[in-house]
Amino acid sequence: MGGDDAPLVIVEGIDRALDRHPDVDFLLFGDETQLTAIVERFPRVKAVAWIHHTDEVITNDQKPGTALRSGKNSSMRLAINAVASGQAAGVVSAGNTGALMAMAKFVLKTLPGIGRPAIATCYPTLLGESVMLDLGANVGCDADNLVQFAVMGEVFARHVLGLDKPSVGILNIGAEGPKGNVAVRGASLILQDTNLPIKFSGFVEGDDIGAGTVDVVVTDGFTGNIALKTTEGTVKLVAAYLKEALASTPLARLGALLARPALNTFSRRLDPRHYNGAMFLGLNGICVKSHGGTDALGFANAIHVAVELIADGVNEGIKKDFAQLCMEPHDGRRAAAG
Amino acid sequence: MGGDDAPLVIVEGIDRALDRHPDVDFLLFGDETQLTAIVERFPRVKAVAWIHHTDEVITNDQKPGTALRSGKNSSMRLAINAVASGQAAGVVSAGNTGALMAMAKFVLKTLPGIGRPAIATCYPTLLGESVMLDLGANVGCDADNLVQFAVMGEVFARHVLGLDKPSVGILNIGAEGPKGNVAVRGASLILQDTNLPIKFSGFVEGDDIGAGTVDVVVTDGFTGNIALKTTEGTVKLVAAYLKEALASTPLARLGALLARPALNTFSRRLDPRHYNGAMFLGLNGICVKSHGGTDALGFANAIHVAVELIADGVNEGIKKDFAQLCMEPHDGRRAAAG
Repeated sequence: MGGDDAPLVIVEGIDRALDRHPDVDFLLFGDETQLTAIVERFPRVKAVAWIHHTDEVITNDQKPGTALRSGKNSSMRLAINAVASGQAAGVVSAGNTGALMAMAKFVLKTLPGIGRPAIATCYPTLLGESVMLDLGANVGCDADNLVQFAVMGEVFARHVLGLDKPSVGILNIGAEGPKGNVAVRGASLILQDTNLPIKFSGFVEGDDIGAGTVDVVVTDGFTGNIALKTTEGTVKLVAAYLKEALASTPLARLGALLARPALNTFSRRLDPRHYNGAMFLGLNGICVKSHGGTDALGFANAIHVAVELIADGVNEGIKKDFAQLCMEPHDGRRAAAG
Repeated sequence: MGGDDAPLVIVEGIDRALDRHPDVDFLLFGDETQLTAIVERFPRVKAVAWIHHTDEVITNDQKPGTALRSGKNSSMRLAINAVASGQAAGVVSAGNTGALMAMAKFVLKTLPGIGRPAIATCYPTLLGESVMLDLGANVGCDADNLVQFAVMGEVFARHVLGLDKPSVGILNIGAEGPKGNVAVRGASLILQDTNLPIKFSGFVEGDDIGAGTVDVVVTDGFTGNIALKTTEGTVKLVAAYLKEALASTPLARLGALLARPALNTFSRRLDPRHYNGAMFLGLNGICVKSHGGTDALGFANAIHVAVELIADGVNEGIKKDFAQLCMEPHDGRRAAAG
């Protein structure tokens, strides 16, 4: 029931997701009357969807604490419960991010050694794809949190991007010297000194995000959220300028017509819907957050992300790797505490 | 002497700037031997430039405090001194940002009522141009600082963008509800309640930067620096993807050839060199910071920014407006303190 055009977009998204993943079953939590009426229009969805009725929903303006206390029978909560009980292999939601994180953390618990889960996503760069975290789960972060994000992000990049030895950088306002706040400087010192098997590349700056300078960009949730949304806004700005330029003269319009297939490929490559679906990293269960304002294509991609994460056993991998890291003499938590 | 390719780029930049501003004189502070040799190659510069020798320079890795204490005879310091003494109407530097701010603050002093100066720049949006501050002068900011940035940014936008009633927004990770850190929430409450004649639009998010949702985006220097550089990195990424797409097929290459003039206009519109030159706002003197890595075109634009700010009497206007604001019953400082 979460997202701007729920539950229609959710059901349409499932229909699209079935193209890539025809063997996945879906549990839909929400208003049965609404859901049944919509599902009737999508025969493929009808064949694989199980509707669990609840008339409670978490709204976008609800505080995480309130949602946690009073939303025990909400569609969001029941969907997370289904993961905890083993009924579902993962949960995908386009609803209230703060509430989803609070509930997922409460119900699924965090992995051993993780203080705070983080939101992570892949994004396109000049060199391919990189991972950024945290994207908004933790507004204020200390050095310890950032070190944990670095460890989780590194494991995530290994599993999801298939990299052997992903490089990790901390987002800062200068690549060298004693710049930035106490948290980033502290985290950098810890990661430089630790024996953690992490390829730590030091500080990176805002323009390194798009450049793909490192495979994993570590930052607090305030900065990460703003950086990611700034990227989206800039892509829209550039696209609008390009459209304007290509419509400005008869010759430009002819050129655009000839280059149409190439320009379509270009657009698809930057379409945020193709990168929709951020993982809540550090939880004992797969929980993927879709943009609230996405459409069926975007939501289908969030489902795809969840299915891939489940299929890769990424969370098992993270659990194992993180447990191993925590057993080493200079693990993230001890190093951070020192 | 500041910047990656100083002093050559500086002198070349002056030469370019003379196209637009033939009646400006320049005081060049730095190594006389180097400067004289370069200036010899630019007759127009030679006619309007006065070289003041010093062999001390502030390096990029020097801490602001060190630069302030031990750089009393540096080219940067002498250039700022020239503004304080009235020899120069403004200073433009491509050197160490932190050192420049520390020295400028020490020598020029801040305007009445301003706790901390901020770095402000104009940038392109879907709707025209907007102003963002702070871009890196203040890593950590409290609500009081952000309120002062809002006041300064509003005055700046009125003078520089020529807007009658610019709208002001605070950068946050959500436009509604109790999101964000203590500083942004506190500043928002103050600006909502105050009688300051500011058109306060509440919180804006990262994608509102490119959208031009507000005329003035207020943020702390850590987030602002990262947001601005993220924008630059994203523009580079999109441009690279576009180039690749337009070279991908013979038809696309032909299309690009036909659309070449339009594509050149598009490129120029996003060229960061055209937006080079950020003002140190809140100082009792015009001080413009150029990117260290820019070329002659970019440095010429930073000079242009300084000349325009001086010609507009923008600092006089800011002083007057801010003094007036401070005399009102609910001025920024009192409101922030309350």
